[in-house]
Amino acid sequence: MTTVRKDRFQTETQLIERITGAIPAVLDGRAGRHPVRDGVRLGIGDDAAVLAPTGRTEWVLTCDAFLEGVHFLGSRHPADSVGFKSLVRATSDVAAMGAKPRFFLLTLALPVARTGAWLDEFLRGMARAARRLGLSLIGGDTKKFPAVSISITVLGEIAPGTAVPRSGARPGDIIYVSGRLGQAQLGLEIVRRTPPGTLRKQLRASPAFRRLLQPHLYPKIRVELGAWLARTGVGSAMIDISDGLSTDLNHVCVASGAGARLWAERIPCVDIPAAQAKRVAQLKLDPLHMALDGGDDYELLFTVAPRHVPRLRQAPGFSDLRAIGEITTGKQILLVGPQGSERRLEPGGWDHFRKK
Amino acid sequence: MTTVRKDRFQTETQLIERITGAIPAVLDGRAGRHPVRDGVRLGIGDDAAVLAPTGRTEWVLTCDAFLEGVHFLGSRHPADSVGFKSLVRATSDVAAMGAKPRFFLLTLALPVARTGAWLDEFLRGMARAARRLGLSLIGGDTKKFPAVSISITVLGEIAPGTAVPRSGARPGDIIYVSGRLGQAQLGLEIVRRTPPGTLRKQLRASPAFRRLLQPHLYPKIRVELGAWLARTGVGSAMIDISDGLSTDLNHVCVASGAGARLWAERIPCVDIPAAQAKRVAQLKLDPLHMALDGGDDYELLFTVAPRHVPRLRQAPGFSDLRAIGEITTGKQILLVGPQGSERRLEPGGWDHFRKK
Repeated sequence: MTTVRKDRFQTETQLIERITGAIPAVLDGRAGRHPVRDGVRLGIGDDAAVLAPTGRTEWVLTCDAFLEGVHFLGSRHPADSVGFKSLVRATSDVAAMGAKPRFFLLTLALPVARTGAWLDEFLRGMARAARRLGLSLIGGDTKKFPAVSISITVLGEIAPGTAVPRSGARPGDIIYVSGRLGQAQLGLEIVRRTPPGTLRKQLRASPAFRRLLQPHLYPKIRVELGAWLARTGVGSAMIDISDGLSTDLNHVCVASGAGARLWAERIPCVDIPAAQAKRVAQLKLDPLHMALDGGDDYELLFTVAPRHVPRLRQAPGFSDLRAIGEITTGKQILLVGPQGSERRLEPGGWDHFRKK
Repeated sequence: MTTVRKDRFQTETQLIERITGAIPAVLDGRAGRHPVRDGVRLGIGDDAAVLAPTGRTEWVLTCDAFLEGVHFLGSRHPADSVGFKSLVRATSDVAAMGAKPRFFLLTLALPVARTGAWLDEFLRGMARAARRLGLSLIGGDTKKFPAVSISITVLGEIAPGTAVPRSGARPGDIIYVSGRLGQAQLGLEIVRRTPPGTLRKQLRASPAFRRLLQPHLYPKIRVELGAWLARTGVGSAMIDISDGLSTDLNHVCVASGAGARLWAERIPCVDIPAAQAKRVAQLKLDPLHMALDGGDDYELLFTVAPRHVPRLRQAPGFSDLRAIGEITTGKQILLVGPQGSERRLEPGGWDHFRKK
């Protein structure tokens, strides 16, 4: 095992040692011996990683940027949340195809001032996410840069031909979401209003506050559910909700050449712990608006043909699933209100539903 | 084909259309139809790309960051060089395993001010590199950011078990390099001394100046040579020279548990066109110093067992190869001078050879 340095790094080699010492990683074996182990022939330590699939498999690949000042605020967000969330976000797109996350590559550019305690905390958060998701680091690149710039490539494996695309939704299919939507947006609104430096103390002091902010700071993704929907063929189309329900459902509809009808009252909105109800009420946020346009939730949005709906009871986390609408032959997405009124839902361009 | 907008982008979708309109890219097929074409089941347009190898193959993966102010100067380097070089650099690590470059993912973060003419020129440079290297874009992520931050993941394919690692050098093996070393460093020194905004004019005016700067601005890599060394098994260890000969040879020696002896007079140094000789002489740069520590050349450094040396005549670009030393049983790298004197060569820590 390499020595883990706690102080600021001097060379790239030392920084790489700190990363591979903290995060589950596949390192190269002894000189000259490169048997395939768990699908990897060469890991970190050579020019590039070499993957050797042991059976017939397809690879699912995606990359995602997580940037200081864009995706997180250096003065407000805990470093372990930055590490955790950057990896979870990138992996979410792999889970949304139904693939099993396997490996990742990390490009990490950061200022020297972030290479001390901040980096250690960042790596702890990323290591926790990697262990939870079953991911191993197989490569990366590290550089000094004025702002933190993270780019992550994630690879997943899936049985040939079973990946669930955005484009498979057919008229009559039922639209489902996992979990609750708008939670991450609510968390962001609270972090924005929390004085810098006090967030950590508040998180330590209150379990209800932690629970409220968890979807924003430490999101969970539905890897098992996604894999089940792919393996069984029950999911006809699937996407993760990263840009908001209205936008991501639009992606599915455009790719599938279809429309949709959403039942506003069925959309699962934020769940607020009683101890935090007063604080949240003061923000005067609209739960349905946050659910439709909030984004950053990383829950799964998927469609199921009516004949497969009964099988959904066997899905992992079935009790967290909600049917929220149906795919139609039109091109529009319509939001059906409490009294049966219909209103066109624009992607991201959500106008307050009750204005009508 | 999507519409290519020449003005500054307003949405990420428009930016993605500009990128995929400019660069060879694999886009998703029609809704619901996802046959495997040339190894790709799903390209750009879904949550993630899906690759389906058609035969038994191993995948070689690497990622590389290319950053404004670190790897290029926004005020001096032409945008098409930034696009070209960022992709070539990233691919160099794949070529140095002996793999055939196939696909890439692009994370591009940039200021709004760079999304007009700069972006078009950047994409032209990247497209030229992609066509030359046989690469197709299969995914990416684009974001607004105060400085240009590029991260590229490249995938190559190789026959199982044939990738040439850094760790395969054995005492007695001959050390070879392709091309000339120090050319890129010389180019950088010239760009640094060229007043901002005048480089393009000088490049247009003088073929000799273009030839002098080409290795720095538009480097070539040795994909065919790398693949030949892997396929034939002639290469025992291989690396691309990105950090300088002294550092990269040290990587090979450390990974292989061996030492090396380099013959200073055999090291191929910069080739300066006669028309530029005076200009370069004024810089008072040491060619051997630049060849040993310059870096950024992306030539191949590889070792060959003596029994395989005769086969090297069949290698692509054989006339550009030079034997520059041998692998030894020691741990040190020794530089042998003109009179047979030996001096220890430290990685990157090169002290002027003749000082001794």
